[in-house]
Amino acid sequence: MAAQTALSTESTTTGSVTPVDLGPAVALSCRECGHRVPLGPVFACEECFGPLEIAYDFGVHSAADTEELRKRIEAGPANIWRYAPLLPVPANVAEKPNINPGWTKLVQADNLARELGVDAGKLFVKDDSGNPTHSFKDRVVAQAIEAARAFDFTTLSCSSTGNLAGAVGAAAARAGFRSCVFIPHDLEQGKVVMAAVYGGELIGIEGNYDDVNRFCSELIGDPAGEGWGFVNVNLRPYYAEGSKTLAYEICEQLGWRLPDQLVVPIASGSQLTKIDKGLQELIKLGLVEDRPYKIFGAQAEGCSPVSVAYKAGHDVVRPQKPNTIAKSLAIGNPADGPYVLDIARRTGGAVEDVNDEQVVDAIRLLARTEGIFAETAGGVTVGVAKKLIENGLLDPTLTTVVLNTGDGLKTLDAVADVGLTATIRPSLESFREAGLG
Amino acid sequence: MAAQTALSTESTTTGSVTPVDLGPAVALSCRECGHRVPLGPVFACEECFGPLEIAYDFGVHSAADTEELRKRIEAGPANIWRYAPLLPVPANVAEKPNINPGWTKLVQADNLARELGVDAGKLFVKDDSGNPTHSFKDRVVAQAIEAARAFDFTTLSCSSTGNLAGAVGAAAARAGFRSCVFIPHDLEQGKVVMAAVYGGELIGIEGNYDDVNRFCSELIGDPAGEGWGFVNVNLRPYYAEGSKTLAYEICEQLGWRLPDQLVVPIASGSQLTKIDKGLQELIKLGLVEDRPYKIFGAQAEGCSPVSVAYKAGHDVVRPQKPNTIAKSLAIGNPADGPYVLDIARRTGGAVEDVNDEQVVDAIRLLARTEGIFAETAGGVTVGVAKKLIENGLLDPTLTTVVLNTGDGLKTLDAVADVGLTATIRPSLESFREAGLG
Repeated sequence: MAAQTALSTESTTTGSVTPVDLGPAVALSCRECGHRVPLGPVFACEECFGPLEIAYDFGVHSAADTEELRKRIEAGPANIWRYAPLLPVPANVAEKPNINPGWTKLVQADNLARELGVDAGKLFVKDDSGNPTHSFKDRVVAQAIEAARAFDFTTLSCSSTGNLAGAVGAAAARAGFRSCVFIPHDLEQGKVVMAAVYGGELIGIEGNYDDVNRFCSELIGDPAGEGWGFVNVNLRPYYAEGSKTLAYEICEQLGWRLPDQLVVPIASGSQLTKIDKGLQELIKLGLVEDRPYKIFGAQAEGCSPVSVAYKAGHDVVRPQKPNTIAKSLAIGNPADGPYVLDIARRTGGAVEDVNDEQVVDAIRLLARTEGIFAETAGGVTVGVAKKLIENGLLDPTLTTVVLNTGDGLKTLDAVADVGLTATIRPSLESFREAGLG
Repeated sequence: MAAQTALSTESTTTGSVTPVDLGPAVALSCRECGHRVPLGPVFACEECFGPLEIAYDFGVHSAADTEELRKRIEAGPANIWRYAPLLPVPANVAEKPNINPGWTKLVQADNLARELGVDAGKLFVKDDSGNPTHSFKDRVVAQAIEAARAFDFTTLSCSSTGNLAGAVGAAAARAGFRSCVFIPHDLEQGKVVMAAVYGGELIGIEGNYDDVNRFCSELIGDPAGEGWGFVNVNLRPYYAEGSKTLAYEICEQLGWRLPDQLVVPIASGSQLTKIDKGLQELIKLGLVEDRPYKIFGAQAEGCSPVSVAYKAGHDVVRPQKPNTIAKSLAIGNPADGPYVLDIARRTGGAVEDVNDEQVVDAIRLLARTEGIFAETAGGVTVGVAKKLIENGLLDPTLTTVVLNTGDGLKTLDAVADVGLTATIRPSLESFREAGLG
């Protein structure tokens, strides 16, 4: 995570003070002190340095308004823009060039349920590997693109070690932005290819991911960074809202019903907090019945600062040095960690972690039961769901949604030990000798 | 391709003679001599050895029937099962466990159009990388699964060098079949992982792909193969119908309109012939207006038997030994080659090929213009589209759909030379020195 530093309004582009059309978004509001500022490319409160969030006016004041909204959503496109009335994007967003992520499958996972001891028909996997660049990052980058248009940015940027680089590269290419992505210079060749193929600039930084982040923060404050939208820094308030669409889709796909339990991965913690925000919005808007739900956070043991804090009963999160195969979750100092702790405790959920071996077992379990090949992050959520059931913390009789946020093709190394069952000569004799006939 | 050999009715399972419920499918009919046999796990005519195809009764006899069908489709799920009334599957197919491919994006590719000199709003990419295992093979395997259920098969099998192995493994896992897939024993480790992760049996055959195929044909005729459905051999007539859904989706996504021109890759040629079949069905059913369309076939120069035959004016296809990076298209003796030649000539299309360098250029072109990272097969179709425009064979003022049938993540090696734009130290000075600021 980039450090949360305040930008004074003077240092931002002029776009931040002129009114912009981002649909129902009306202002930025500090999550800590409630201070409001106009919509602009800022991410930290000028009063208290707290994180800024989007404040909305959805214009829904009656049951008739709710019904109209529901119909409008259901008649919308099969992507996140069906929820444009609830996102910081202009109403005509679907007409603009965008890679149009979302509306991924909610898979009723009866085979997995049987293995985990969950009641039939109660377990679902929200499979975000179906997004255009095969991770949930497409959802958040799509929002950042619209904010970048609104603020007249011409270059899209980010620091990344994988999924985000590809998502930014692809979205920028299609939307007509220059992109310039910063990564540690010694990333695996496969990840470099996935990020570079979209033709944007890909800059290797001599150093580790923290060095990359520090450099990006410097660049934002420098004239050289003028006109640059860093999707996960100065566009973060907009970007982060993309995760709300996971909550919207899950509820709509369940027939406008809240799930009882959700198992969500934790990297920065932003996704989990925005899923909670999305569920709360649906309740307030009257689109779903107001009843309790529990949110469970999932981490890898090798990077489990939030899980450790949860179990110790702490309100603050002590940073860790990550060491896990679940690299897309490996943020040792998660910015939204404390909010995640709040949500897990408030909803009656929990935060749990699994070790790398359990991650791999869970990837293979999901693949052989449901035909879904998940990234390591999906191994973390499925593995944690299994552990929570064994612990008695997750109720196997209730409707449960487990998130898979990425694609196994991106983390092939994690399961590199799977292989051939047998090698035979091309003859029936050899087939029988191998005990296969 | 497996050799087309006839199976006598005696040698097939009893499922072939008892009536089965495969929706509108009523019989198998020989493409060459028209001889009809009951639905069963057979693929070649007992009279003339010609390929068997599904014969349907769609029950559409009036404009009112057409309108009802259109409404039923539009109200259907966001996957291929919206077209269940036109496929060899039972009416309740959507309720069965299946990986539910299809309804992938038809991307209006205005950036690519600009680069290729096509009129704005006229060029579309049908992007099948969005399928569950990220290739169009999920469409065909989904049909084979339903046929396997109908014929009481318990094991799903195939010979494969890549996409098909993963598609069969995933679909079998979810649908509750045993799977046993045969591949050359020396495949790249990445491809082995992608196929093995779903937990089915994966057997390496000491030999090349032809040896694998020959062995599979032997196994079908042997008692050891009893109860085995080879998706692309004894279930081929059902399997192949899955490609019709590409035609259906393209037309529905264009607003129930035929495209003027399609650029389709050729491996066995089956996909191209079934797209044509699907378009003809939509015309006959009254779902689209009856007007001309042109189908263009695309091959890689290193495996271009159909393109060579087309250009030489031949009706037969002389086999080649493949040598191209477009491995998913590398079938040197394409079973449906002659039918492809017929269709290209009848519709006023053509068959063209591009070399490996042009394939790579086209992959990069599509990625940097539309944010779509295509498999080598997508590089072939985009590269051929570019060449056909330069040749004057493809009209840049007409609505054109180019197919991308797979995902770039599966053929990373093809673009392994893309990489970092620059490497810098984590400082603004270094950033400026590199000419980036």
